[in-house]
Amino acid sequence: MALVVIGGVAAGLSAAARARRLDPRLEIVVLEKGPVISYGACGLPYLVEGRVRRPEELIVYTPEYFRKERHIEVRTGARVVSMAHSRREVVLESGARVRYDRLVLATGARCDTLGIAGTDQPHVFTLHTLEDATRMRRFLAESRPRRAVVIGAGYIGVEAADALRRNGLRVTVLERSPNALLRDDPQITLAVRRVLEEHGVELRCGVAVESIEPGRVAGVPCDMVVLAGGFKPNVELVAEAGVELGRSGAIRTSDRMETNLPGVYAAGDCAEVTHLVSGSATYIPLGTTANKTGRVAGANAAGGRERFAGIVGTSIVGIFGTGFATTGFSTEQARAQGFSPVAARVEGHSRARYFQGGKTTVELVADRATRRLLGGSVIGEEGAAGRINVIATALGARLTVDEFEQLDLAYAPPFAPVWDPLLIAAQQLRNRW
Amino acid sequence: MALVVIGGVAAGLSAAARARRLDPRLEIVVLEKGPVISYGACGLPYLVEGRVRRPEELIVYTPEYFRKERHIEVRTGARVVSMAHSRREVVLESGARVRYDRLVLATGARCDTLGIAGTDQPHVFTLHTLEDATRMRRFLAESRPRRAVVIGAGYIGVEAADALRRNGLRVTVLERSPNALLRDDPQITLAVRRVLEEHGVELRCGVAVESIEPGRVAGVPCDMVVLAGGFKPNVELVAEAGVELGRSGAIRTSDRMETNLPGVYAAGDCAEVTHLVSGSATYIPLGTTANKTGRVAGANAAGGRERFAGIVGTSIVGIFGTGFATTGFSTEQARAQGFSPVAARVEGHSRARYFQGGKTTVELVADRATRRLLGGSVIGEEGAAGRINVIATALGARLTVDEFEQLDLAYAPPFAPVWDPLLIAAQQLRNRW
Repeated sequence: MALVVIGGVAAGLSAAARARRLDPRLEIVVLEKGPVISYGACGLPYLVEGRVRRPEELIVYTPEYFRKERHIEVRTGARVVSMAHSRREVVLESGARVRYDRLVLATGARCDTLGIAGTDQPHVFTLHTLEDATRMRRFLAESRPRRAVVIGAGYIGVEAADALRRNGLRVTVLERSPNALLRDDPQITLAVRRVLEEHGVELRCGVAVESIEPGRVAGVPCDMVVLAGGFKPNVELVAEAGVELGRSGAIRTSDRMETNLPGVYAAGDCAEVTHLVSGSATYIPLGTTANKTGRVAGANAAGGRERFAGIVGTSIVGIFGTGFATTGFSTEQARAQGFSPVAARVEGHSRARYFQGGKTTVELVADRATRRLLGGSVIGEEGAAGRINVIATALGARLTVDEFEQLDLAYAPPFAPVWDPLLIAAQQLRNRW
Repeated sequence: MALVVIGGVAAGLSAAARARRLDPRLEIVVLEKGPVISYGACGLPYLVEGRVRRPEELIVYTPEYFRKERHIEVRTGARVVSMAHSRREVVLESGARVRYDRLVLATGARCDTLGIAGTDQPHVFTLHTLEDATRMRRFLAESRPRRAVVIGAGYIGVEAADALRRNGLRVTVLERSPNALLRDDPQITLAVRRVLEEHGVELRCGVAVESIEPGRVAGVPCDMVVLAGGFKPNVELVAEAGVELGRSGAIRTSDRMETNLPGVYAAGDCAEVTHLVSGSATYIPLGTTANKTGRVAGANAAGGRERFAGIVGTSIVGIFGTGFATTGFSTEQARAQGFSPVAARVEGHSRARYFQGGKTTVELVADRATRRLLGGSVIGEEGAAGRINVIATALGARLTVDEFEQLDLAYAPPFAPVWDPLLIAAQQLRNRW
């Protein structure tokens, strides 16, 4: 029995490792198109920044580790160019054929270049692979650029802006939509703008870049450009082989992470998952989800019976030390999903006054009809991750605002105010009915 | 229509303020036996430490504020000495009678002196009221004690030990039970002991103090003693008047915080609440619960219809910068409650490696039969509050370990590792079946 996994980063290796745990005798082969496996892609901006000194520091496991410790064969530089499910076979660029009984597709995603012209110039970068970051780091050292334009104010975009600014560059972030962080929430955009501007980074929203000219982008002079316009799932090859895609364009799966082809699973940045707040399929490529769906895909590919319930869309990004965290739906997103949203936003403190807690802004969104929480956001210099996780847990558990208001959260002066901003937000929200 | 509230700290003032919000015309009188109201009792150890400079900094509102801004009459120095429900009347020490239509009992608790002899010496302190802390602070300044014994290794005990140590005293903590922090968990006790000892504080468990001799306690020489042996609810007076008590000795209430006497409510440190994990009444006096139950009691006393679902027993304490947080039941407590507990404990990191995250220990306890989470603990220099709150939310929502394992928690390198220790603990726990 042979399990083949396409992709050797987060989802693929989680799948392979989990499959091995369930079935010690399964033959497992991981095919990775790049030169290295198992790197922390979310750490790439910190390699650019210089906080992470060497690319190797982001590599968690080597192919040797998997071979020796897990009896998993990992082939790097092994790009799959076609798949023939009727023969249970994938073909590599080298022409080699690899047979499978079970297949896990963890083909990942690539940067969406948004149809922008001129992206193949040497001063234009994406920040998606370890090579991308290494190349960018080398460019910073050798070409000493002074002005950068970052296209896209999503997570990677603002992290790249932060990293470049800390390297002394003047940075302008251009965002096509009216809002930053993929969240149609003007208040969050305002807060992002404030933090960026405090640190000398300019944010311009509503700017659609069509081409990168040699010395400027959308009128902004620059000698370096970072493309951070989002991701596209790598699905063309498998779609040709008959793997069904969902409406998002990513691979549709069951809650066992199985595709329409029996025995073929998908996980990570190439796959859709269920959004637990809406109940619909969604495409939100993130490392945490890649790891979780990889585990489930690997378990089921090895004969287990696990299911992945879904996500609630939680994410956090640090911009110059402030955490911006969101989960579930914003008011606008909730409305677009057919809910009738009610929201409250409060500004509180992260600790008791005499422990110099920083300001924390919490927003909660609930459904007018059912009183169920639909989403929330937390912005703060400390405690943002812990607080968004409470909201995320509440969304996963389908709590109402009334249940949320009475959560038994921890209190002691070094850690929180006696009324946590989360609970104050819930009180305010309950007053909106 | 007159609402009388006995007690002017957390629960009493929450009740009064909430009642006023619901009924602008209600006559509201708060009777507080002490000289001040509305102080942050949880801040008292920080007043002893010196981080909080003056007692006034812990006072949130004054009687004048309530009179002017809320139209609530607050009388300080107004000790109630009896209650006659048939006449809807309480009698003050001064002999004055106060009529009520509705009554909220927020009589609080007092330090349990555990029958120890010699507690009335001038070098013996409790740490429960603003006067206690002020007196202790004055004693530190004037008598310059050099060795302190703290009796009790609960929250107040370890906070007092921390505060005294930071004032340069040698400190020994004596605890009657085998474990610290009211948690029968030897691993937590070990961690508490390690942090205390690293900072020069000795912890001796299993030491039952019977008397305080002038220069020593249980053989330990000292010139200062802090009694921190837990709390007893102040219920004698109201019990005489026919208010029913629960098995814990605190006031029994409905989920509307109403006692057996119609129109008489109880809230805060004098009242039982429901433990949502066991479903039974429990007595865990904490400031957060006091505020929440006070709000519900006040709302219902003003004609509202709110309910307090209950608590899950969440708490956190900082000892020399490390957070010790617990919620729900320990393995031993779960067993005593009739569950068949399964537990896993993991040591992880609070952030990505290159963000120098500190160590974080997470324990999860679940029920073998239902797979429902029953409790957990988190120990760490950062993130302990946020992580225990996720477990607390999961307990409140009755999540199983399987649901918990798939929580969509926030990840970015400055905030968490890609596999949060919470999720690793859940994975480990699932392997125990």
